[in-house]
Amino acid sequence: MRKIRLLLEFDGTRFAGWQWQANGLSVQQVVEAALQKITGETVRLVSSGRTDAGVHARGMVAHFTTSRDLPLSAFREGVNRYLPPDVAVRQAAEAPPDFHARHSAEGKWYRYTICLSPVRLPLVARGAWQIRSPLDLEAMRRGAGAFCGRHDFGAFRAGDCNARGTIREIFSLELIPEGELLYLDVRGSGFLRTMVRVMVGTLVEIGLGKRPWTDVERLLLQGQRIEAGLTAPAQGLCLMEVWY
Amino acid sequence: MRKIRLLLEFDGTRFAGWQWQANGLSVQQVVEAALQKITGETVRLVSSGRTDAGVHARGMVAHFTTSRDLPLSAFREGVNRYLPPDVAVRQAAEAPPDFHARHSAEGKWYRYTICLSPVRLPLVARGAWQIRSPLDLEAMRRGAGAFCGRHDFGAFRAGDCNARGTIREIFSLELIPEGELLYLDVRGSGFLRTMVRVMVGTLVEIGLGKRPWTDVERLLLQGQRIEAGLTAPAQGLCLMEVWY
Repeated sequence: MRKIRLLLEFDGTRFAGWQWQANGLSVQQVVEAALQKITGETVRLVSSGRTDAGVHARGMVAHFTTSRDLPLSAFREGVNRYLPPDVAVRQAAEAPPDFHARHSAEGKWYRYTICLSPVRLPLVARGAWQIRSPLDLEAMRRGAGAFCGRHDFGAFRAGDCNARGTIREIFSLELIPEGELLYLDVRGSGFLRTMVRVMVGTLVEIGLGKRPWTDVERLLLQGQRIEAGLTAPAQGLCLMEVWY
Repeated sequence: MRKIRLLLEFDGTRFAGWQWQANGLSVQQVVEAALQKITGETVRLVSSGRTDAGVHARGMVAHFTTSRDLPLSAFREGVNRYLPPDVAVRQAAEAPPDFHARHSAEGKWYRYTICLSPVRLPLVARGAWQIRSPLDLEAMRRGAGAFCGRHDFGAFRAGDCNARGTIREIFSLELIPEGELLYLDVRGSGFLRTMVRVMVGTLVEIGLGKRPWTDVERLLLQGQRIEAGLTAPAQGLCLMEVWY
């Protein structure tokens, strides 16, 4: 059996997330259907992780196995012909037998985009969270710094997250203002369910002066989910890269 | 009567262009309807120019007159409440009596976005033209330079453009590569119907090696429309700014 590794981009707006859902179309579902058209086989994709409903990806990684002796172009150009306009295979490559999209991942880069305009901006609204009030970026940077390192992120996850271990490492969390946009680039070893969005929601509350930046340290040390910030909206989040 | 000047942003994907159309929804139509809700008056907008079906704008300027003594916020936040998600008023300001959105305009900046990825990129596809083959940017830059200055652009317009004068001045035409994207920033005194898109189509044919860059000079001197390049697709074009 060959193992193939795919790099995927998708606009998550109309999807119920990456993973198969009982009610709602998932990205995994449309990619597996396209792969089945090309291979004639039932294909199961293993991804680097789930993404929530409405979250985008520029660099989702997934693998599958196939017995078919097709050229790699069949898994890129070929599959793209059967995918809707909001999903595409960017790259397809042979993977070694021991490669596993989830277990082999060493880190991920997520970008969260905030729009700082006082009014809605139609050309960026699909991929950003609009904050109408000014943000104190220096306070947010201090909070961002406190997230970096190895911590228990139990306070920064979805209520229904059932991961057993909650220790994760954040390699870096940068705030990058660019015109009316503010990018929050988070790189880390792995992430709990909605973790990035709760981190961003907490940082925004710090930026709005609703809580001190030292709350980050406090929540990491002894926090409960209920004490952390709101969950930032899905449309601002994009999985940029997974590395192995 | 007060004269109000609006700065508008819109995602042109689902619109039949700026101007009222017999068949198809126009941006002008939805903005006039929202203004009517706020003012209780029939409002007619005068814009800096038309945009074609599918073309976007980050900085369309339009003016209207009203007898209503409403605060300016009514014409921004108020109007935005009645606009669909793909259209928004960015700014509203009092304009002097002699201001005219079209006649007073001294120049415009259009950005055309090309996506150079060999595969579709769902997150940029709504606002870019995908070119799968490599482009010779140096040849394109020579062609771009030849466009600059005051010329007869009769060969670079839509077949149904009925403007009497075809002399226009291009202030600058820059090629700006940024990752997988290539921006073509065109600044000029004014533009004929689809002129930017025919210019871009011609430059792309130069970049693909289908014609020499000297074609630009030849077409400007004595060209017929039929000899110029194809009309680049609307979704790559965005009106960035109009200045007065």
